[in-house]
Amino acid sequence: MNQFTHFDDRGHARMVDVADKSDTRRIAVATGRIVMQPATLKMILDGNAKKGDVLGVARIAAIMASKRTAELIPLCHPLALTHVSVEFLVQEADSAIECRVTAETVGKTGVEMEALTALSVGLLTIYDMCKAVDRGMRMEAIHLQEKQGGKSGHWRSS
Amino acid sequence: MNQFTHFDDRGHARMVDVADKSDTRRIAVATGRIVMQPATLKMILDGNAKKGDVLGVARIAAIMASKRTAELIPLCHPLALTHVSVEFLVQEADSAIECRVTAETVGKTGVEMEALTALSVGLLTIYDMCKAVDRGMRMEAIHLQEKQGGKSGHWRSS
Amino acid sequence: MNQFTHFDDRGHARMVDVADKSDTRRIAVATGRIVMQPATLKMILDGNAKKGDVLGVARIAAIMASKRTAELIPLCHPLALTHVSVEFLVQEADSAIECRVTAETVGKTGVEMEALTALSVGLLTIYDMCKAVDRGMRMEAIHLQEKQGGKSGHWRSS
Amino acid sequence: MNQFTHFDDRGHARMVDVADKSDTRRIAVATGRIVMQPATLKMILDGNAKKGDVLGVARIAAIMASKRTAELIPLCHPLALTHVSVEFLVQEADSAIECRVTAETVGKTGVEMEALTALSVGLLTIYDMCKAVDRGMRMEAIHLQEKQGGKSGHWRSS
Amino acid sequence: MNQFTHFDDRGHARMVDVADKSDTRRIAVATGRIVMQPATLKMILDGNAKKGDVLGVARIAAIMASKRTAELIPLCHPLALTHVSVEFLVQEADSAIECRVTAETVGKTGVEMEALTALSVGLLTIYDMCKAVDRGMRMEAIHLQEKQGGKSGHWRSS
Amino acid sequence: MNQFTHFDDRGHARMVDVADKSDTRRIAVATGRIVMQPATLKMILDGNAKKGDVLGVARIAAIMASKRTAELIPLCHPLALTHVSVEFLVQEADSAIECRVTAETVGKTGVEMEALTALSVGLLTIYDMCKAVDRGMRMEAIHLQEKQGGKSGHWRSS
Repeated sequence: MNQFTHFDDRGHARMVDVADKSDTRRIAVATGRIVMQPATLKMILDGNAKKGDVLGVARIAAIMASKRTAELIPLCHPLALTHVSVEFLVQEADSAIECRVTAETVGKTGVEMEALTALSVGLLTIYDMCKAVDRGMRMEAIHLQEKQGGKSGHWRSS
Repeated sequence: MNQFTHFDDRGHARMVDVADKSDTRRIAVATGRIVMQPATLKMILDGNAKKGDVLGVARIAAIMASKRTAELIPLCHPLALTHVSVEFLVQEADSAIECRVTAETVGKTGVEMEALTALSVGLLTIYDMCKAVDRGMRMEAIHLQEKQGGKSGHWRSS
Repeated sequence: MNQFTHFDDRGHARMVDVADKSDTRRIAVATGRIVMQPATLKMILDGNAKKGDVLGVARIAAIMASKRTAELIPLCHPLALTHVSVEFLVQEADSAIECRVTAETVGKTGVEMEALTALSVGLLTIYDMCKAVDRGMRMEAIHLQEKQGGKSGHWRSS
Repeated sequence: MNQFTHFDDRGHARMVDVADKSDTRRIAVATGRIVMQPATLKMILDGNAKKGDVLGVARIAAIMASKRTAELIPLCHPLALTHVSVEFLVQEADSAIECRVTAETVGKTGVEMEALTALSVGLLTIYDMCKAVDRGMRMEAIHLQEKQGGKSGHWRSS
Repeated sequence: MNQFTHFDDRGHARMVDVADKSDTRRIAVATGRIVMQPATLKMILDGNAKKGDVLGVARIAAIMASKRTAELIPLCHPLALTHVSVEFLVQEADSAIECRVTAETVGKTGVEMEALTALSVGLLTIYDMCKAVDRGMRMEAIHLQEKQGGKSGHWRSS
Repeated sequence: MNQFTHFDDRGHARMVDVADKSDTRRIAVATGRIVMQPATLKMILDGNAKKGDVLGVARIAAIMASKRTAELIPLCHPLALTHVSVEFLVQEADSAIECRVTAETVGKTGVEMEALTALSVGLLTIYDMCKAVDRGMRMEAIHLQEKQGGKSGHWRSS
């Protein structure tokens, strides 16, 4: 392959023609994490229920963002998601929270961008809710973990 | 401070009251990068004009996303941006492209989330346009670089 | 059933997996009403055409809102509506206008939320257009009237 | 007053001219409730944290919807909210949950529609999350409770 | 002026910095028309009230679109419109309907794009509603008619 | 045909029922142009790459707008586009740029409105980017060029 598929042979951006692709079940898993000060992590973990559920809000933001992907990413095809789930895993040794998003559809194009967009907005929401106490938080290692379905089949991040 | 400002004293999420804050000029700079295979970076750099301008598309996506921030981040206040710019810096040694977004407003709340949201969508757009040739790209070091204006004054990432 | 389907077994919100559901024709009918002062109702009824068509505007708002349902309701699946209609029925004895929305799709999930969201926005639009003369209007009895299609079959409000 | 302000003298809908109105602090409080089966209410109340926080999700949906009001209500002016909060009050005797939304801005127009839109979407979200166990839930008594600011001053539902 | 203001000196698109512009009252008037078969025009004119109000629907679509301008036009600043009105003028001799949109704000940037976007969507909505009977309709002469406010002052199409 | 399909027999607007239509491949081509001063055209043509790529930005805006069509046009059905491309053709003799949009889907309704909406937003974006140097630009001859698929089959503008 010597050219990006999102451009035609004159270099013009386009939404690639997928009419002839088959409707298959497609799954994508994206992961990434936000690193923070230990005190911030402690506040988030203490927070549940009574004091404010940062991760619960971030989970909703991530799921809602997955549905807006085609509005945000210019050449992304609109598609009807059939499943989205969002997990947060505490990495205490690194003072970080890892986020893992699984997105699925039955359709003509993959859901990698939906998973990655949900993930990014989930992490950004954590940043937003904690920035008053820890402005220096960093988002790291945002990437596609795994992908199934479609012509390219099963792929896993090495 | 022993509680997140986005929750009230019963732990309920809210959009914080900013009515009494003054309208000041506020600036935020966010940076982050996407790391890829050297061949992918070469394709992007060769791409301009004739073969397709990946970074030009990503820049537009980033600017447009900055205007959708309050729709994506649940407790973010809506605000009227007065300036957004997006720079891409090639880091050939690391086979990466750094993105740097500056956002500004004259208003009652900061524009950190607008800068970070634009940055994230800019990097995601690069991912989307290149994923057919390099599915393993990673977004790294997304963080606030600098912030001016408002009661907390000038802040810089250390 | 001892748990809400929108949460997994750890209590985490998710967009439920519907990939294996079949594409069937689904219909939902929602009703509700807005109660107002008799003078307000008279103004609305006099209004058509020459003086301003409150119900015509509300009908358009309702139809347009049905298409935004998945953006507003966090765990709602996006779907492609195949039909939406909105009727207004005057209930003079009660000084009220009843709204009745029918929504349909051919898909994997029901359209109850689309019908109810359209209905709510239709009534809110009537409120908005009349609030300068009658701030005390009330929306009442918003509920699902009937639902067809899908595994649960035909259901009717008792 | 013998005509709706949202129409001109030929009956044409318009966004009313508010350029000459002064920027004052404006507050609106809207309330409404959703009535359900006692078993459903019990499930919601048991739900917090471990089993799924229905009201936490509904609160986020309500706050986010307040920011979309001008997109949904045709003749509503866009405005920059400075505060939104959402409370849920359990009414066990009636097997209902009351929702109360407070919205504020400093601007030229009132925030009644923002409060009412947030309220409606909050109740709709409760319906969505519980509909698999109780399809017959009803939304009742959605109305403006109180309003401050602007030329019309303080108003309270009688 | 030898360069477009929407690009910096390296040719990179940006949202132009308007922080130092003063908040003045700004007005823009845009006009354009849709030309159709005489029979189509007759159907639209007969339509009001009983048979379906094409222009009433188009007017609402135009007003609502004005509020989405900054989402559609990449480098447009978000702003809070204070007034939008839409008039339709029948040009029977040409078998056309002219649309005229007036948009206003008190702010740092002009509202030309808001007026033109509303106008375009108003005409497109007429097209949509009549296309089943007249697919060959054409939109013509869409342009800015007049503009007031801001540093450039009063401008009128010659 | 003696009535518009978007209204029922009482003249009420509705989203037409398309559940029974078959999923066929549908294509629409729309064209239109923007006429400007020769100096403006020269600036745009000189612009590519180094000085700012007006047409590249307009192309992205057009593609992104195609995905928002159902949000803008009140009675339009939501659909999943499978392909969108945007070409700009310079008409030096007329000092104009013609835009040509092709939109495709596999679905129950045509994509005429998607093509026309993309086209309009593409032209509006050119206007926006050049208006500081040429406020008098005009958009002309926006119309459907061709349409394939669905019951009405192949249609071409005469």
